[in-house]
Amino acid sequence: MLKLKTYCVKPGKKVKLKDWNPADKSASPGTGADDARELAELAARLDELQDLLYAEHKHKVLLVLQGMDTSGKDGVIRHVFDKVDPLGVRVASFGVPTKEELDRDYLWRVHKVVPGKGEIVIFNRSHYEDVLVVRVHDWIDEKEVQRRFKQINAFEKLLADNGTIIIKCFLYISKAEQKRRLQARLDDPTKRWKFRLGDLEERKLWDRYMSAYQDVLNQTSMSYAPWYVIPADSKSSRNLLISRILIDTLERLKMKYPEPEENLDGVVIK
Amino acid sequence: MLKLKTYCVKPGKKVKLKDWNPADKSASPGTGADDARELAELAARLDELQDLLYAEHKHKVLLVLQGMDTSGKDGVIRHVFDKVDPLGVRVASFGVPTKEELDRDYLWRVHKVVPGKGEIVIFNRSHYEDVLVVRVHDWIDEKEVQRRFKQINAFEKLLADNGTIIIKCFLYISKAEQKRRLQARLDDPTKRWKFRLGDLEERKLWDRYMSAYQDVLNQTSMSYAPWYVIPADSKSSRNLLISRILIDTLERLKMKYPEPEENLDGVVIK
Repeated sequence: MLKLKTYCVKPGKKVKLKDWNPADKSASPGTGADDARELAELAARLDELQDLLYAEHKHKVLLVLQGMDTSGKDGVIRHVFDKVDPLGVRVASFGVPTKEELDRDYLWRVHKVVPGKGEIVIFNRSHYEDVLVVRVHDWIDEKEVQRRFKQINAFEKLLADNGTIIIKCFLYISKAEQKRRLQARLDDPTKRWKFRLGDLEERKLWDRYMSAYQDVLNQTSMSYAPWYVIPADSKSSRNLLISRILIDTLERLKMKYPEPEENLDGVVIK
Repeated sequence: MLKLKTYCVKPGKKVKLKDWNPADKSASPGTGADDARELAELAARLDELQDLLYAEHKHKVLLVLQGMDTSGKDGVIRHVFDKVDPLGVRVASFGVPTKEELDRDYLWRVHKVVPGKGEIVIFNRSHYEDVLVVRVHDWIDEKEVQRRFKQINAFEKLLADNGTIIIKCFLYISKAEQKRRLQARLDDPTKRWKFRLGDLEERKLWDRYMSAYQDVLNQTSMSYAPWYVIPADSKSSRNLLISRILIDTLERLKMKYPEPEENLDGVVIK
């Protein structure tokens, strides 16, 4: 039996990234065919829960995906949510901020796209870039980093207090696995267009990124917005684990379909 | 061989809704199993084209879905786009306008959510409600209706001139089929919560709605933004027809995956 708690960063407890193994495959039951069947079953269950969430129109769900380049953020969106009704799921991607966005605080563009009632929103990268990429490049100082951790916790508390279920996943791949995936992009003519020389510059900062991620996990995993460390060297194990965390979280909400209007007995449609 | 043109409202030609049959099933090849297999094949092809659209990052695609209550707008979103990567598809639903929206022109909230490059956006209802529901209830006068047709055509021309492929589908069901579907909602305990007594009030205005839809088709089907009349009494035929129209339109774009960056030969990943 897979213990989801094992992957959760317990609020207030100091963790070290090296205590997780990016190559861990515990969420994957066996062969590729087993994994595919299992994922299809979980996807169908997630679809049911999303329908219920949409119908009940009460909770809001925010899934934050963070991870190094090639860690599989796009893959999770594609494979975990493939069977879910597009009507109830929205993806918000955060790239380099625009001038309009830079002219405001870094949470402004994030707040605009948070989930509404009955909605699942996936953040493909997020406000955490504002304590990761900018920190690793020394574009903000340490005092500002600490201020931002507090601001982010307060912002997520606001969302949670107003009915948002927040799940944050750090897709943890090894440096060796990233090398394999970048090499695969380079070697596959149909994927080569995705390869950017700039990605190699970020790769050089690997250790600084890992240290920044570890700080994020230690400073911003809260009972109302926990971080999960998702071993992500195995794509199928990664997808299965995130599916299970989502389903487990949604099932705890004990959602119900709404009651019909009263006085519908005896209604005749002409 | 199914002629998609048959369902397209030719710009400048006056059409009558009664020339189409809501019960037409020409898009459906045979049994339920045949339809399901066919739809799965089309969904897989649409998925490929969406991936290409996203990668090429050139065209923008807008699919407008309009139709009476129970005509199947939600069903199209679910079944036609079920296999498409959520990363590249977005649904914009237009309900009763908020105060903030009413304080501006009716195209303001629409413009905010048009597709960007590489994106498919589905309008679940649209700015056409502003020449339908408000007209049928006499909330705007005829002069304003005619002004809005011109404004809508100009707005869609702006989008088209800037790389947006616009496809508009009117899901055409019969009054008898709507009765069956409303009755089914009433009779099925798991669907009863969807039934609104208010829906019966709108149903009383059926003929006025059909007349208003016919005007929309005649005034706003343009070469750059054509209307299709989708016979929608059969759910599978409706889904198959819309899938084919989308695929046909996207294939005409002759999209290509982008070229990789130059100087990638001999790159070594450390």
